[in-house]
Amino acid sequence: MCQLLGMNCAQPTDVTFSFTGFAARGGGTDHHADGFGVAFFEDKACRLFIDNASAASSPIAELIKRYPIKSKNVISHIRKATQGSVLLENCHPFMRELWGRHWIFAHNGDLKDFSPTFAGAYQPVGSTDSEASFCLIMQRLREHYAHQPPLEELFAALAEITAEITQFGVFNYLLSNGQALFAHCSTNLYTLVRQWPFSTAHLIDADLTIDFTTVTTPDDRVAVIATAPLTDNENWTRLAPGELLMFEHGQRVLHAMVTIPAAVQAANAANRACT
Amino acid sequence: MCQLLGMNCAQPTDVTFSFTGFAARGGGTDHHADGFGVAFFEDKACRLFIDNASAASSPIAELIKRYPIKSKNVISHIRKATQGSVLLENCHPFMRELWGRHWIFAHNGDLKDFSPTFAGAYQPVGSTDSEASFCLIMQRLREHYAHQPPLEELFAALAEITAEITQFGVFNYLLSNGQALFAHCSTNLYTLVRQWPFSTAHLIDADLTIDFTTVTTPDDRVAVIATAPLTDNENWTRLAPGELLMFEHGQRVLHAMVTIPAAVQAANAANRACT
Repeated sequence: MCQLLGMNCAQPTDVTFSFTGFAARGGGTDHHADGFGVAFFEDKACRLFIDNASAASSPIAELIKRYPIKSKNVISHIRKATQGSVLLENCHPFMRELWGRHWIFAHNGDLKDFSPTFAGAYQPVGSTDSEASFCLIMQRLREHYAHQPPLEELFAALAEITAEITQFGVFNYLLSNGQALFAHCSTNLYTLVRQWPFSTAHLIDADLTIDFTTVTTPDDRVAVIATAPLTDNENWTRLAPGELLMFEHGQRVLHAMVTIPAAVQAANAANRACT
Repeated sequence: MCQLLGMNCAQPTDVTFSFTGFAARGGGTDHHADGFGVAFFEDKACRLFIDNASAASSPIAELIKRYPIKSKNVISHIRKATQGSVLLENCHPFMRELWGRHWIFAHNGDLKDFSPTFAGAYQPVGSTDSEASFCLIMQRLREHYAHQPPLEELFAALAEITAEITQFGVFNYLLSNGQALFAHCSTNLYTLVRQWPFSTAHLIDADLTIDFTTVTTPDDRVAVIATAPLTDNENWTRLAPGELLMFEHGQRVLHAMVTIPAAVQAANAANRACT
């Protein structure tokens, strides 16, 4: 399995603190060493860094820890290969264009016997179930709408498509188009919101404490979403299986429950027990 | 205007030497300081680094000079904005997926009154004539073929599409799908092939000499394509207006002449005089 990290912010914010703890799990404090990636949106476009080296050792990961790239929507992923070899083409996040915007997707899970047909605008480049599920999401959204609908409508369509894919197994994911960040929990996903009055945070995976009061303004608000809590002195909320959330301006703005078939839920339960 | 750098190799090769000279032109020895980008293919996938900071000052450019990423197809670009603001979404190279492979494109030129209609699978994210021309190339290739044809057939289709777009003005470009590198010269493009027996090379834009005999094997062969020569002691060949080349395994393998209308050639001539 893999781990996910997402950040949605009211103001452009850098991810260096959270990424430092997260990257340590990519071969340092944990075994997710089969590649990593991180995408930073700037309005409609995005910077995407991927590497099939481990996040704990990659010079690209080192740059991201040191270079404070500011963004309102960030998605990162560290990989422990389940389906697909340790190749660059199988590194998350994946990027595609839809309706004149870039879209970014990362997945933690395992979809069994998932072989959708791709006859439209999207085709996977690598061999992961994850990229296939992303291409299906893009294809379905394009079938639903010729132009981007309002975010509420988009969210409802996404809930439908998620229900379709979640039948195939564990499907925790993060998705963004630079305007909002969508998070679906199949087994393991935690969130917290950092906002005024800010306090300090201490990483679990590195001996690093930050005092957010010294680096923020009252206008800052940051929602963090992760496979497992990154800090040991903040209140992380665990999402329930089937929860689909939309984050905008650093907070949860939409919520839906996606029905996961009972047999799939039972099969997923073992994965929920261990991250 | 902008500058282009491409590399097509028989064996995975790093671009650190050529990129060091090229990046100096991005705000150091020359004025192309409105962003930069570089894409490194690994088989079907690719690492894409873009920044709206200048190549001479960006920490991402610094990483690329120091971290020897090996690739058989590299495309890089330094930007001097003509159309479109200095935004990340307007930084070259651009990436899209076609037939289950990533495609990378960078442009040096200026297309006048170029407003194609995008009703298919591709739509520009930014506001440059360059990204619009790339989307049109992808759209036309997809209209021609449902699956990737042999490279010879692809090259012929590309010559047709290039003739269509080159009517609108200066259209020097580099394009790759990770298998081959395509280069079209409208005004300014130079090439050379480094192969056994290798010698030394000295950069024009930095006081740096490399002795290729110490870092190569007889199997290495590298074709370099650039808007202006990067070294002062190697024999660069200037391409003629309308030349379209395909490079594979570090050498020119296909050649075609694209007809540029006389009026466009006359208008382009001033650009050819000054790089």
